[in-house]
Amino acid sequence: MALPSTAALAQRHARIRESLETLSLDALIVTPSTNIRYLSNHAGTAGILVITRDAVHLLIDFRYQEAVRALQGSASACPGLRMWDVPASYEEALIGCLAEIGVTIVGFEAAHVTVARHEWWRETIAGRGLDITLRSTERLVEQARLIKDASEVATLRDAAARLEQVMPAVLTAVRIGVTERSIAAVIEASMREAGYERIAFDTIVASGPNAAMPHYRAGARALEAGDLVVLDFGGVLDGYCCDLTRTVSIGPPSREARRVYDAVRDAHAAAVAAVKPGVDTSAIDAAARDLLRDRGLGEAFGHGTGHGLGLDVHEEPRIGKPRADMPPVALAAGMVFTIEPGSYLPGFGGVRIEDDVLVTGSGCELLTSLPRELLTL
Amino acid sequence: MALPSTAALAQRHARIRESLETLSLDALIVTPSTNIRYLSNHAGTAGILVITRDAVHLLIDFRYQEAVRALQGSASACPGLRMWDVPASYEEALIGCLAEIGVTIVGFEAAHVTVARHEWWRETIAGRGLDITLRSTERLVEQARLIKDASEVATLRDAAARLEQVMPAVLTAVRIGVTERSIAAVIEASMREAGYERIAFDTIVASGPNAAMPHYRAGARALEAGDLVVLDFGGVLDGYCCDLTRTVSIGPPSREARRVYDAVRDAHAAAVAAVKPGVDTSAIDAAARDLLRDRGLGEAFGHGTGHGLGLDVHEEPRIGKPRADMPPVALAAGMVFTIEPGSYLPGFGGVRIEDDVLVTGSGCELLTSLPRELLTL
Repeated sequence: MALPSTAALAQRHARIRESLETLSLDALIVTPSTNIRYLSNHAGTAGILVITRDAVHLLIDFRYQEAVRALQGSASACPGLRMWDVPASYEEALIGCLAEIGVTIVGFEAAHVTVARHEWWRETIAGRGLDITLRSTERLVEQARLIKDASEVATLRDAAARLEQVMPAVLTAVRIGVTERSIAAVIEASMREAGYERIAFDTIVASGPNAAMPHYRAGARALEAGDLVVLDFGGVLDGYCCDLTRTVSIGPPSREARRVYDAVRDAHAAAVAAVKPGVDTSAIDAAARDLLRDRGLGEAFGHGTGHGLGLDVHEEPRIGKPRADMPPVALAAGMVFTIEPGSYLPGFGGVRIEDDVLVTGSGCELLTSLPRELLTL
Repeated sequence: MALPSTAALAQRHARIRESLETLSLDALIVTPSTNIRYLSNHAGTAGILVITRDAVHLLIDFRYQEAVRALQGSASACPGLRMWDVPASYEEALIGCLAEIGVTIVGFEAAHVTVARHEWWRETIAGRGLDITLRSTERLVEQARLIKDASEVATLRDAAARLEQVMPAVLTAVRIGVTERSIAAVIEASMREAGYERIAFDTIVASGPNAAMPHYRAGARALEAGDLVVLDFGGVLDGYCCDLTRTVSIGPPSREARRVYDAVRDAHAAAVAAVKPGVDTSAIDAAARDLLRDRGLGEAFGHGTGHGLGLDVHEEPRIGKPRADMPPVALAAGMVFTIEPGSYLPGFGGVRIEDDVLVTGSGCELLTSLPRELLTL
């Protein structure tokens, strides 16, 4: 386990505390498990974290307390941590904690707190006559998570590199007559063997016509000669996700399969070549999209070119078309995301090629380095 | 694929429309993927559904449209479905849909919509001068999902029964020197082989002292003689979850291990015996909890006795202590949930035994029927 050190956590806390200062907040309530993990190394699926100017309050129930005690005795202890027991309701425990530590202006994450939860907090605070004002905040932790620190880069690099150990078993399993579901089982068992603690998302094995559905998973269809097969999978290592797609051909590809494959491969290369600090994320998307449009496949590419990777398998930055409701994002060193153009042709099938990249000072490092030429199996 | 039929979906729609009528709503915005699936058979991870008095509007992007078209040509077509393309933003598409279909009083699910999202909807509606009022609703779809219909019971029964195919491979893998992680890999590969489309949650293999952490997953520890090993796993079949825990002994159990095991087994049996329609869920919890307390293990059982199972692996009903902030729930025929008492003793280890039950007209049916006596491997 290569967990972030106490010093790395302290730097993350410092960034959040700058935001507290700027926004005149006494504390921030943090609720998503990945944001909690980012700030505390607590990896449980339940918990509420309250970060103040000088402490980190972690509210967790019985199930996780033993693990947190072990963590606090290690080199990855969370600095300034105070653990609060949650005997029954997390919501009750939160209000109790806020009242006891005496904070007045408290931020919450508007993108993660539901209307029902917010209502309950507000009414309970009012009902008990507490002097606490809740303030909506946006992306304070996500903004920090956007640029990976050294410990995160090391883990993401390791996570991506291990996919090379997975691929040989996968390619052995892909053959005529084998079902998509069996291949998915081989992929997932190989990921475990490679040391991933779990799969990052439902494995996709989409063969023949099924490959025309970008989010098809894996079904009972058996592979046939002439199929293109999209294999999309990833694992989680020490909390961090990797994500890879390769498309292979069962027997010699048709002329059309070759044409579509080459277009997607070239779109992928064009997007990778466009990555460097300062460039807008939408320019990476445009590099892939323009190439596919020029090859007559503009309509066949209906999704974005990529998504950020980290503690979540889909996080910032979004690599897609510019959107009126979202501010543009310029790439910066330390960002990690996928590049995954594709083409989907109903009735025919589909192709997708996906790698994970890290933005460096001058361009990018490909974290996944498996060959991108069309393999015929 | 045993998807619910068009007629089954029509019955679900009728239940939601009764609620619309009662609450004087023209429509309900449905956002969680499991609620969307429940009402439409659309199984994608993105989408927004708007159910009105006479139609079901499904907003989905390019990636899922091919799959929905295929569904609509089948015996599991969603009645009254109208598919809306989402070219860019789901939020924009939703407001566009509401404006075009001309609904005025529109419910949303307060437990699933974030404060940020609700704010954006409200401001956009106001900014465009639309005559739409958003109303907070609670648990309209969850209430319907609480009682499983015939198609759901059939799928849940099948999902639970297939765990019997998984267990032999698991028991073969559990031996001295094997790591928790390798055993988890065997469990997950066996689940794929048994036909599950994915795992329902991160597999738990907690051995020796690790078993004292109820939500430990699976790590690098190799099994040793004298360990108790908690194996907790489940799969998803046609969208529905099963969940099973067995605890085994590596070599002959110590006297203390035997004592704790017997107490948990008896608590499990007491809880199962208490299940019948009309009984409060907290009485099931009390049956297990009282027995463990009488055996001196009250403090060692820090979690609830069970949780509902269905499209979500944790759903209603909650089988736990009564809580001031939640109304009591009486069991009714058609409810499906786990019964999983445990004992966790730091330094020593732990025991948990878990089965899935269906409430019947007179008691309950155990959906998982593997032996519950302590196995020595």
